Amino acid sequence: MQTKVNLAEKLALLDAPFQSGIVGMLNDYKLAVVKIHGEFVWHKHDDTDDFFLVLSGRLTIQLRDRDVELSAGELFVVPRGVEHCPRADEPAEVLLIEPAGTANTGDAGGERTAPERRI
Amino acid sequence: MQTKVNLAEKLALLDAPFQSGIVGMLNDYKLAVVKIHGEFVWHKHDDTDDFFLVLSGRLTIQLRDRDVELSAGELFVVPRGVEHCPRADEPAEVLLIEPAGTANTGDAGGERTAPERRI
Repeated sequence: MQTKVNLAEKLALLDAPFQSGIVGMLNDYKLAVVKIHGEFVWHKHDDTDDFFLVLSGRLTIQLRDRDVELSAGELFVVPRGVEHCPRADEPAEVLLIEPAGTANTGDAGGERTAPERRI
Repeated sequence: MQTKVNLAEKLALLDAPFQSGIVGMLNDYKLAVVKIHGEFVWHKHDDTDDFFLVLSGRLTIQLRDRDVELSAGELFVVPRGVEHCPRADEPAEVLLIEPAGTANTGDAGGERTAPERRI
């Protein structure tokens, strides 16, 4: 049976920055929460846009030509193929939406690539 | 150029309950905000799940066998084909995500069917 998701409760289950947890599905899209603190890696997704909604804190989505500064209640969709690197100088809590199977590090790969995990 | 979306600013553009406004796209999905006050109509979407995230207030998603009560920071995905009827006894602000072209009234149609509108 489908149940509601309390985002704060799910975020409390996350131990470390950049370890996202899938909280639900919308058709074949995964709904995930993540805490961001520090800088991720530059990457892009050639096959999909990438949705970020800040739930608390502040998030900078660095693009090659500008920074997009997001506060709580603000969202940004990185277009497919566009290189980006999320960064949060203080901890931020974020809702991510992208197709299931999308790698967190996109085309970059590397040690920060994480398996999908349901929480 | 892709710009960020401040959800509160977009919600302030809406005049009346149930008049949603599209604020962005995620691939072929529309991201929309809506104010809900009162009861909508019973309907279902046979081809898609239906995403609700409450941004402020409280929202009841009535299903035929139970009510799902959502507060701010809580989301629920109505599975495809499941009849539902949103209701808010006090005004609620909600983020909706569903494929572009999905009718707000699903299979029910009727006078509350509204055209898609970008805000």
